[in-house]
Amino acid sequence: MSQVIQRLRKLLREEELEGFIHYQTNKAREFVTLRYLSGVGGLEDSGILIPTDDDPVLFVKDFEGGRARYSSFIKDVRVAKTIPIDNALKFLASLIEEKGLKHKKIGIDDSELTVEIYSRLKRLDITPVAFGEEIRKLRMVKTREELKNIRKAVNITENAILKINDMLGSGMTESELAAEASFTMEKFGAEKSFVHVQYESNASVPHHVSDSTVVKGDGLLVIDIGARVEGYTRDITRTLEVGKIDEKRRRIKDTVKSSLDASLTMVRHGMPVSAVARAARDVIRQKNLPEPQHRIGHGIGLSVHEAPIIETEFEYKLQEGMVLAIEPGIYIPGKTGCRIESNVVVKREGYERLDANT
Amino acid sequence: MSQVIQRLRKLLREEELEGFIHYQTNKAREFVTLRYLSGVGGLEDSGILIPTDDDPVLFVKDFEGGRARYSSFIKDVRVAKTIPIDNALKFLASLIEEKGLKHKKIGIDDSELTVEIYSRLKRLDITPVAFGEEIRKLRMVKTREELKNIRKAVNITENAILKINDMLGSGMTESELAAEASFTMEKFGAEKSFVHVQYESNASVPHHVSDSTVVKGDGLLVIDIGARVEGYTRDITRTLEVGKIDEKRRRIKDTVKSSLDASLTMVRHGMPVSAVARAARDVIRQKNLPEPQHRIGHGIGLSVHEAPIIETEFEYKLQEGMVLAIEPGIYIPGKTGCRIESNVVVKREGYERLDANT
Repeated sequence: MSQVIQRLRKLLREEELEGFIHYQTNKAREFVTLRYLSGVGGLEDSGILIPTDDDPVLFVKDFEGGRARYSSFIKDVRVAKTIPIDNALKFLASLIEEKGLKHKKIGIDDSELTVEIYSRLKRLDITPVAFGEEIRKLRMVKTREELKNIRKAVNITENAILKINDMLGSGMTESELAAEASFTMEKFGAEKSFVHVQYESNASVPHHVSDSTVVKGDGLLVIDIGARVEGYTRDITRTLEVGKIDEKRRRIKDTVKSSLDASLTMVRHGMPVSAVARAARDVIRQKNLPEPQHRIGHGIGLSVHEAPIIETEFEYKLQEGMVLAIEPGIYIPGKTGCRIESNVVVKREGYERLDANT
Repeated sequence: MSQVIQRLRKLLREEELEGFIHYQTNKAREFVTLRYLSGVGGLEDSGILIPTDDDPVLFVKDFEGGRARYSSFIKDVRVAKTIPIDNALKFLASLIEEKGLKHKKIGIDDSELTVEIYSRLKRLDITPVAFGEEIRKLRMVKTREELKNIRKAVNITENAILKINDMLGSGMTESELAAEASFTMEKFGAEKSFVHVQYESNASVPHHVSDSTVVKGDGLLVIDIGARVEGYTRDITRTLEVGKIDEKRRRIKDTVKSSLDASLTMVRHGMPVSAVARAARDVIRQKNLPEPQHRIGHGIGLSVHEAPIIETEFEYKLQEGMVLAIEPGIYIPGKTGCRIESNVVVKREGYERLDANT
C-alpha cells in the first residue's frame, strides 16, 4: 500500500470520515490531487474513491485504462464511461453502493473539486466534508518516493543552468537561451516545468517572460528554471554574470547570497517560517537595499508553488520532510535584478541542500 | 471593450444576472476562465468581477500588477492582498459593495471555481448562479483575436514537424526527437503545449509518453504536437514513414487519410457533430480495420481539448467560428499505430483548414 494512501487514511480516521472521493474533468489536468493519490499524471475525466477501510478504486475514461494500470499504485483500476459528467457520477454512485458508503461522511478536496462536480456529488447519498486543508498538510511532508523524484530532477536542472552559463557572451537572446535550457532538460528525459531567462532591466520584473532581448554587454542575468520528473518539480534560480559587472551589481549579488545563507541557517524542524523569512529580509534591509515584494520562499512538490509559504507574517512551524524553495531577491526597477533560489529538505537538526552551493 | 466581455454581458443579461465573479488560486494556474476573461495567463491568487452594466475589475496579487496592466484588455487592474484566501474574499466583498451588487444574482463558472472559494462566496451578500455551461458555449466560437493567435501557432507547429521529418533515420530516440521538436517551437517564440513522438508498437497506445525507443528500421512514427501562442494551442498529428513501410502499414495510413478527408467534407455551420464522426468511422469500418476507441475530434483554444466533442453519440450542431481538431486513427495493439489530425475553422459553407494538407 502506498505511503500516501496510508497517511490519508490515518487522517480520515482522525476526522471520523468513512472515505475520500475525488474527480477531475479535462479542465483540471494540471491539478494534482488525483496524481498525488493515484501516481498517474494528466488523467482527464477520471476519479478515485478511497474508502477509509476498504481497497481504493481508480476509475479512468476509455483509453486511459492501460496507462493507468501500468503506472498507478492503486491495484483496482477500472475503465468507465465518464462523458458527459452525469455518466461519471452514475459510475461513482455504483461504487459508493458497492463499497457500502451510502449515507456516510466522505472527505473531498474542496481546494481542487469544482462546484460543478460538488453540486452533483451532493445529490448522491453521501455527506461530502471539506478535506482540502488536510490534503494540503499531507502534501507538505514528502514521502520517500516523492523525494526520489525531486532529487532526480536536481542534476537535470543544474545541467541546464551550466549549459546557459557556457553560452553567455555568444549574443543569443533571452528566448534562445531559454530554449537551449529546455532542450537540455528534455534530452535528459525530464519535462520542462518552466524557464525564465531575464537580463538586466527585464530581471527587475519578477515573472517577466523571456523575450528577444539580446544578452550582451555587462550585467546580471537571472535564470529561474525547473525540470519536472514524474510530476515533481524543482525550482532553482541563479543569477549569472555577463561580461564584467560593476560594483553596485556585485554588492547586490553578494547581499542576495548572504540573505540566502542567513535564511538557510534558520531551517530546521520546529522553526516558525517567519524566522526563516525574517533572516533573509534582515540582511537585505541592513545593506539599505530594497526588500523583495514577493514571498521569501515556498514548498515545492507536484506544484511549483505549494504550502508552506515562507513569509514573516506566518507562524506555522517547519516539519521534517518538507521540501522548500528559498528565493531572496533584490530588484532595481528599470535597471537590474538578482535572485538566488535554493531547494532544501527540512531535517530534524537542520537541512539538506539539494542544489549545489553556487 | 473586448469582444469576449461584450459577449459575456449579453449572456448575463439573457439570464437576468447582474454580473459575473471568478477567482482562481495558485492551484488553478492552468485553468483558463480567468485568462479568457482578462487576456492575462498564469495569474495566481487573482480574480475578476464583471458587472453586467458597469466596468469590469481585474484584481491580482502583489507583484503581478505590472504584468497584468501591460497585457490585460481590462482597464481597471488593481493590486490586492489575496493570501490567505480570506483576504481575497474581503477584497471581493468591498468590490461588490462598490459596484452596487449586494443581494444580486451573480454568475460563476462552476466548471472552474473550486468548492473552497464557492463556500466563501456564498457568505458574501450575493446569490451565486452556475454559469459554467454558458462560458463553455461562449468559448466554443472564437473571436478574431483568438483566431489570430491560433493561426500564429500554425507555422511554428508545422516547422517542428518538418524538422522531425528531416531527422528520421538518424538513429535518435523518441525522447530526443520530441526534444528537437520542442526546441524548434521555442526558438520561434512559441511555448510548447505538448509533444508525443511514438514509434511502431508505442504508437499503438494513444497518449504513450515518448521514451528511449530508438527510431530505426521500417515503420510508422506518430507525432502529436502543439505549440501555444498567447495561451492558444494547436493540436496537429502526423504519421511519418521511417524506412520503407510494408503494404499493411500503407493500407492503414491510406485509410486514416481517407477517414480524415471524409469527415472534413461534413464540416460546416449547422451540421450535427455526429455526422462528422460517423463519416470518419464509416471509412475505417468499411476497410475492416479497427475503429479508434478515442473520440474523433474536439474543439481547441485555450485548452487542448475543449467543447465541442466530435462523436457519434452527440447531436449538437457545429457553429461558424468554432475551431476543431479532427483526428481519426487506427491502432494495432503491440504492432503499430497511425493517427492524422487536422485543425479547421468552421465556416458557413464548409471549413478553412489551418494546417497543410499532407
